[in-house]
Amino acid sequence: MQPAVLFAAKAAAFRGLLPSLAVAGGRAFSSAAVRIEKDTMGSLEVPADRYWGAQTQRSIQNFKIGGARERMPVPVIRAFGVLKRAAAKVNMAQGVLDKKIGDAVVAAATEVADGKLDDHFPLVIWQTGSGTQSNMNANEVIANRAIELLGGQLGSKLVHPNDHVNKGQSSNDTFPSVMHIAAVTELHHTLLPQLQQLHKALADKADEFSDIIKIGRTHTMDATPLTLGQEFGGYAQQLEYGIERVKGALPALYRLAQGGTAVGTGLNTKVGFDKAVADQVAADTGLPFVTAPNKFEALAAHDSLVEASGALNTLAVSLMKVGNDIRLLGSGPRCGLGELLLPENEPGSSIMPGKVNPTQCEAITMVAAQVMGNHTGLSIAGSLGHFELNVFKPMMVASLLQSTRLLGDAAGSFAANCVVGIQANKRRIDQLLHESLMLVTALNPKIGYDNAAAAAKKAHKEGTTLKQAAMQLGLLTSEEFDQWVRPENMIAPKP
Amino acid sequence: MQPAVLFAAKAAAFRGLLPSLAVAGGRAFSSAAVRIEKDTMGSLEVPADRYWGAQTQRSIQNFKIGGARERMPVPVIRAFGVLKRAAAKVNMAQGVLDKKIGDAVVAAATEVADGKLDDHFPLVIWQTGSGTQSNMNANEVIANRAIELLGGQLGSKLVHPNDHVNKGQSSNDTFPSVMHIAAVTELHHTLLPQLQQLHKALADKADEFSDIIKIGRTHTMDATPLTLGQEFGGYAQQLEYGIERVKGALPALYRLAQGGTAVGTGLNTKVGFDKAVADQVAADTGLPFVTAPNKFEALAAHDSLVEASGALNTLAVSLMKVGNDIRLLGSGPRCGLGELLLPENEPGSSIMPGKVNPTQCEAITMVAAQVMGNHTGLSIAGSLGHFELNVFKPMMVASLLQSTRLLGDAAGSFAANCVVGIQANKRRIDQLLHESLMLVTALNPKIGYDNAAAAAKKAHKEGTTLKQAAMQLGLLTSEEFDQWVRPENMIAPKP
Amino acid sequence: MQPAVLFAAKAAAFRGLLPSLAVAGGRAFSSAAVRIEKDTMGSLEVPADRYWGAQTQRSIQNFKIGGARERMPVPVIRAFGVLKRAAAKVNMAQGVLDKKIGDAVVAAATEVADGKLDDHFPLVIWQTGSGTQSNMNANEVIANRAIELLGGQLGSKLVHPNDHVNKGQSSNDTFPSVMHIAAVTELHHTLLPQLQQLHKALADKADEFSDIIKIGRTHTMDATPLTLGQEFGGYAQQLEYGIERVKGALPALYRLAQGGTAVGTGLNTKVGFDKAVADQVAADTGLPFVTAPNKFEALAAHDSLVEASGALNTLAVSLMKVGNDIRLLGSGPRCGLGELLLPENEPGSSIMPGKVNPTQCEAITMVAAQVMGNHTGLSIAGSLGHFELNVFKPMMVASLLQSTRLLGDAAGSFAANCVVGIQANKRRIDQLLHESLMLVTALNPKIGYDNAAAAAKKAHKEGTTLKQAAMQLGLLTSEEFDQWVRPENMIAPKP
Amino acid sequence: MQPAVLFAAKAAAFRGLLPSLAVAGGRAFSSAAVRIEKDTMGSLEVPADRYWGAQTQRSIQNFKIGGARERMPVPVIRAFGVLKRAAAKVNMAQGVLDKKIGDAVVAAATEVADGKLDDHFPLVIWQTGSGTQSNMNANEVIANRAIELLGGQLGSKLVHPNDHVNKGQSSNDTFPSVMHIAAVTELHHTLLPQLQQLHKALADKADEFSDIIKIGRTHTMDATPLTLGQEFGGYAQQLEYGIERVKGALPALYRLAQGGTAVGTGLNTKVGFDKAVADQVAADTGLPFVTAPNKFEALAAHDSLVEASGALNTLAVSLMKVGNDIRLLGSGPRCGLGELLLPENEPGSSIMPGKVNPTQCEAITMVAAQVMGNHTGLSIAGSLGHFELNVFKPMMVASLLQSTRLLGDAAGSFAANCVVGIQANKRRIDQLLHESLMLVTALNPKIGYDNAAAAAKKAHKEGTTLKQAAMQLGLLTSEEFDQWVRPENMIAPKP
Repeated sequence: MQPAVLFAAKAAAFRGLLPSLAVAGGRAFSSAAVRIEKDTMGSLEVPADRYWGAQTQRSIQNFKIGGARERMPVPVIRAFGVLKRAAAKVNMAQGVLDKKIGDAVVAAATEVADGKLDDHFPLVIWQTGSGTQSNMNANEVIANRAIELLGGQLGSKLVHPNDHVNKGQSSNDTFPSVMHIAAVTELHHTLLPQLQQLHKALADKADEFSDIIKIGRTHTMDATPLTLGQEFGGYAQQLEYGIERVKGALPALYRLAQGGTAVGTGLNTKVGFDKAVADQVAADTGLPFVTAPNKFEALAAHDSLVEASGALNTLAVSLMKVGNDIRLLGSGPRCGLGELLLPENEPGSSIMPGKVNPTQCEAITMVAAQVMGNHTGLSIAGSLGHFELNVFKPMMVASLLQSTRLLGDAAGSFAANCVVGIQANKRRIDQLLHESLMLVTALNPKIGYDNAAAAAKKAHKEGTTLKQAAMQLGLLTSEEFDQWVRPENMIAPKP
Repeated sequence: MQPAVLFAAKAAAFRGLLPSLAVAGGRAFSSAAVRIEKDTMGSLEVPADRYWGAQTQRSIQNFKIGGARERMPVPVIRAFGVLKRAAAKVNMAQGVLDKKIGDAVVAAATEVADGKLDDHFPLVIWQTGSGTQSNMNANEVIANRAIELLGGQLGSKLVHPNDHVNKGQSSNDTFPSVMHIAAVTELHHTLLPQLQQLHKALADKADEFSDIIKIGRTHTMDATPLTLGQEFGGYAQQLEYGIERVKGALPALYRLAQGGTAVGTGLNTKVGFDKAVADQVAADTGLPFVTAPNKFEALAAHDSLVEASGALNTLAVSLMKVGNDIRLLGSGPRCGLGELLLPENEPGSSIMPGKVNPTQCEAITMVAAQVMGNHTGLSIAGSLGHFELNVFKPMMVASLLQSTRLLGDAAGSFAANCVVGIQANKRRIDQLLHESLMLVTALNPKIGYDNAAAAAKKAHKEGTTLKQAAMQLGLLTSEEFDQWVRPENMIAPKP
Repeated sequence: MQPAVLFAAKAAAFRGLLPSLAVAGGRAFSSAAVRIEKDTMGSLEVPADRYWGAQTQRSIQNFKIGGARERMPVPVIRAFGVLKRAAAKVNMAQGVLDKKIGDAVVAAATEVADGKLDDHFPLVIWQTGSGTQSNMNANEVIANRAIELLGGQLGSKLVHPNDHVNKGQSSNDTFPSVMHIAAVTELHHTLLPQLQQLHKALADKADEFSDIIKIGRTHTMDATPLTLGQEFGGYAQQLEYGIERVKGALPALYRLAQGGTAVGTGLNTKVGFDKAVADQVAADTGLPFVTAPNKFEALAAHDSLVEASGALNTLAVSLMKVGNDIRLLGSGPRCGLGELLLPENEPGSSIMPGKVNPTQCEAITMVAAQVMGNHTGLSIAGSLGHFELNVFKPMMVASLLQSTRLLGDAAGSFAANCVVGIQANKRRIDQLLHESLMLVTALNPKIGYDNAAAAAKKAHKEGTTLKQAAMQLGLLTSEEFDQWVRPENMIAPKP
Repeated sequence: MQPAVLFAAKAAAFRGLLPSLAVAGGRAFSSAAVRIEKDTMGSLEVPADRYWGAQTQRSIQNFKIGGARERMPVPVIRAFGVLKRAAAKVNMAQGVLDKKIGDAVVAAATEVADGKLDDHFPLVIWQTGSGTQSNMNANEVIANRAIELLGGQLGSKLVHPNDHVNKGQSSNDTFPSVMHIAAVTELHHTLLPQLQQLHKALADKADEFSDIIKIGRTHTMDATPLTLGQEFGGYAQQLEYGIERVKGALPALYRLAQGGTAVGTGLNTKVGFDKAVADQVAADTGLPFVTAPNKFEALAAHDSLVEASGALNTLAVSLMKVGNDIRLLGSGPRCGLGELLLPENEPGSSIMPGKVNPTQCEAITMVAAQVMGNHTGLSIAGSLGHFELNVFKPMMVASLLQSTRLLGDAAGSFAANCVVGIQANKRRIDQLLHESLMLVTALNPKIGYDNAAAAAKKAHKEGTTLKQAAMQLGLLTSEEFDQWVRPENMIAPKP
């Protein structure tokens, strides 16, 4: 199996339900068995059945902010597995990591990458702003699991979280790297496919509705006609550009900070470590990661995430427009515009047959508002780095991942549960088109502007059709009206 | 004339057109006469017919950002006049300022307060973040004008910008003070009256429309009925709360930083200076300014402006809803909802009679979006103070003043040019109400839910009225339908 | 036990870990036992061990957006328990609900209010924008649990989700009501106590540090002195105002929409239902809820949430300032400002003793950025209601609750794990104070401005102390300098 | 002269001061001479010395929002000149516009394009959301000026605003076209050159400082060393990427809506008009404009502006970081970090020599906050189109143009008045570097981690240098320390 295919298969798992950490955590904090773990500040108890160590435990105790709902997103955890495995492989290849230990680290990191150890990552987003504690969480879990694979005792440091798992690394370059790996993975495997699904659904409707001529609306007021297909074609075009915008944000995210270590200089790495890790991650994920050409920028600023969030913001703006239009065009059934019939997915009301609430439009526009808000927050965070490090990293990546996931899922849901099932209410569309006074435009060259205006004004004042008014004024015959006023000639430039 | 009345009269002038600074500045920079002004860094040329001095001139040269459009807002300049006058009076009363010089400063500052010297304030918002250069601009202009009043020579420092005009003051307390004075003045004299005008217009319409029963819409879909008056009453309620929110933000703005000087300690003031200046400003403006109880907070943070901007943001949110609803309820004339007839203010189109674009709705919703954006920017700025000083002051006050002015003017324009002229399209409203299937709700207690549902489903499927369907099913007579299905019994709780 | 006390006790539980819904849901979707539930669109399978019914199940299937992490916040679910219980009590009192059924509903709703049935609320935020599906989730769970309590069969509708549990209610008034109940509860029980804790910690430090004179900084540059206590007093003042701002937002949230039913008219309620429910909720929660005077506004707009979010935004702005200042004042230990010593909570680095990362500052400033972003998103959502209903409700309440919880927890964590342990580095503070050239200000009245400036310039140029320079220039004696240059005389106005 | 060169030359004028509209307008509204102009709603008076007509005058009267400060930005007005000229040329080429009239329109439009008629565009941004009134303002001014050139009488409609100047056009396609033309012009001629200037200034400093080794800072705390050149290299990299981001947003803006007319169908144009106009605009501006492939998207959505604003937002985020760093690195002179010496541009204080306020940092960070806020507002506006038209157009383009201009000018000012003059305070940098305990890292391989830690702890506790501590512990000699602890070996990966 090719790496890309393999990873794509795994990516489905990324999107599963959050593992039942609450249960585990709950047990851990109550009466369950514990073991002692140490770090440079001393010893403390951790749950016996968890791989994490002392630094993770300290973070649990020092950052009681938000509860389980605010845990570090799963894609970040999986990305740590990918990264730590790659680093171990490169360290072995560069001859600075013992093969037996290195192989165990690779095996344990693979379990993290594959989502088998999600339950061992209890920390919340709202911790140290460098993500150091989640990096140590990964180091500790991988070290202990590797120790277990080697038959050692948990906490023994036989495989050392810092000296082995974190070798040649710093939180300051690993966390930015997993931010990028997680973001790219989710953008590729969660967002883009579902956006493409929505784009296809809209484009299919544009085709299906290409012969349905309807009234146009500008300023929400009656305007000259277009086809319903042209209207949906506009939506499809927005999505197409939106997909391009997301793709345009990827190159900056392919750049990995790994190799910059503490401040960007690469202290404590060997020359070539940075490129080799990026190559390994690329090979393992099937995605074209490269080493960042400037590690100082890559640690101190996360403009690439701000940029990506900007692409999502534009997408949200597009989806707000499309969702709003579809709910309004489907409004009614009697007292709204009523041009579209949206799928009935749920009982609207126990009383009112025909009441279909545009619930998918509501979900996607709520998502759009959330994403636009996330973008503000993420931009603020991105602007506030100091010197060699931006310390809003966990919040930034969590925000981007939430926006990515929500947009992707909402697009998929909107496509499947709304757009593909939309039907044109042709009778209504035709009725509105022919009642419209805007068709008077077609009469200008035939009866002159003044006569045309007189007909339209009369129709408006008396509430009649344009045809009735024009005929009553003796301006034309019924046949002439039918020949001259043809919406199908009003939907394109003249040859 | 009472101070409040006097100031209210002057406030009208605050809202006038930007003075023709471009012309003055243009002349100044080209061939016009110059004089020499000095500061501690040396001498330079300033336009001979302008009162500003060397520090203002340096700022012109060092901050070529945005051009004349980005000048410090006029209300800030006028507020400097108010503040400098008050400080001079207090300094004289405290015996630390010579009466002759003090009187001249008072006279010159009064001209600034009255808008007679607007042309002498050329600096842009994008200068030093403490507003020091605009404070010096005020000091220099007042000093030179006072010198002129005393028969001295411009630039002679007979009246000294720092030693006399700025006596007992620092940019760090004067600028926050003028931020508050300008904001309060504009909120009181520009925003609130126009909001009240809009509130009244909406409340009047609620009364006028209190007997017009119409279809309700939830999720944009047909729902149970309400009166058009109830609908407008909801809008009026939003405005009423909005006015309360703006008023709720005023107390924090009444607190003046004056007396904190450089870092909040009040170094170089005499005890009581702070309170006396606030009292004087209150007396001169007729607005209840007080001295800030904590000057450190008042210099280092501008949370009070963020709070006020939050009130404007909520107001913008309300106006977006009202503006959107009115444009949609007035959409048509044939192919929209068409329940409201909006005033025709401009030709919509040279072709289409009856096309009235809801242009006032468009202006006010654009303003709402701008205000919401300003709120984000102002909040960011407010969060970024360092130590004893926030240095985003000019941007913060400019943003708040723009939001205030735009909301006020847009509310006034919307009230006068749209709301007061709205008419109910009673025929359309009545037609939609009676076509609606939602009235079936009233039949539940009479013919049972299942029969009611059957009638509604039949009507929906066949496109008939509910009455037709129910009669065709033999569920009731025409008289029974007319007796039982009465929208006027559906618009309030049952006794 | 008084209701308020009782509820406060329960409120602690509100903040617990998210229940292990993933496990339950996981089982539900795989091989576990199922039963059949019905609604007006037909039958479908639900997990046998869950109380929810058909409409909940449809929502699970139609809104696969975001996964378990995005579930409706627990405080909303608990608030549904509070509200449904109150409604049942009032319905019994108004004689429209059978006592036996009503009592069972009260008992079941109490279990929801007490958090015993959290596992039965699987729906995500991103559903219908009215929250209808969560309202039905509550109705279905309470109905089935009440049936069970009465010895009936789940799904039998012996207690009916709509006819009994939802009696006199609509999603359109229940959901806004639970938004307010949940928000007020969290603001009262999660946010305010922790803010007060932080305020106290800062105010205590202001007292503790009231005698420590230090250099002030404006524009980040050396300025005149103040006490460290004054500096912390500014922070405490920001918090005090912030607490007032939060409290100021509560009255609008006390107003409950309950009784408006579908569009605000109160159709299908008896007169007095609205007030009686609000009174009951107030009695049960010990919080002063009232019925909203205008139900149309209460359904169609959620300006009260926007207002509350605005208060949180201002608070976030304050906390960003305080968090930034403290991390910068504690920067070092050798190469930063180094005036504060922050508590060592975690190993900063395995290499560098003395390296304490200001991790609590980082958590709280990340929270601040998130809250500012949430505010943008919530404001957008609040602006987008249409006609009689805003359909961004779940997103709005989730956003407000996240901001509330994060600010509260972060404030508590920051207070306990950072502020209370801050120590002044007196040696460093004193050293900087006396090296500063700003003290020259005190010499102006003694040796004149020009001489003072000469001394300061000399000291700056040659890198000496001010005293050395002044003495070398022969301007004063050592004794004179020590007598005249006294920072303790520079921290307040002169008598 | 080549068109590109010609246009670039003209572009400089775009950035000039706002013309003295206030004066003109002032005269117009008072006692000045008037003439009568007519439109389909009747006649009204306009100032005799202005070219505008009745529709412009109506807008002045109906939209008194914000005053002169809020006028439609000058680049939009100039772009109307460019567009109207191109349309007239194409109309003549397609044989639908009389040559004599067409030539006069071309001549008049050229005057608009060249900025000679700026005084004749009095309308504010806050008008109809389609920009119709500014389009009519352009049509009326060009028509009347063309009439004048032909020797006719103003207001005579000899050259007709609609039939001739607006031929084949609608506000709905012209305004989006001028939005793009104005935005691209400003991005190309105002923003990019000044960004490049700033990039060069930062890159030059990176070179200049490449040998200066300094302490790194992460979490604001002392960290391992890097060169000052590396630090500035990070800033330069941010700018380089920022320039790429701006360039990446241009292609979407090159797409012109012209030819879509009222709803996107191109009704009333001849086939080929759209492409021909885009080609003509491209030729006249020297910028690669093309016709938008989908006109429906181009009228109904302005995602391309949201995208561009997103690029500016990212740039603002970068500049906030750079501006903040530089002000903090230059803080002092005695009590801050003091590593950089910023140019003295203005007297900081009349008392304190050496006090240089980082005023350029303040201006650029204020601009950054404003741009971030503008981005929120513009995104909201972009999301709110309805059906065939977004009616937040004037606000969107004004917001983008303000952000563009401010960022450009602030970048240029920051480069010229700050960055190029920055000097490294080498003595201070060196002192901090050698006092830092972080250098202990280099001793690990020589004396072991435990001994190294002991030395560092002792130094930290006792306030000595690392060298003193290590020597006192007998761990090494003075020579060994000097040989082993070499910062210059800590700034890159090991070979």
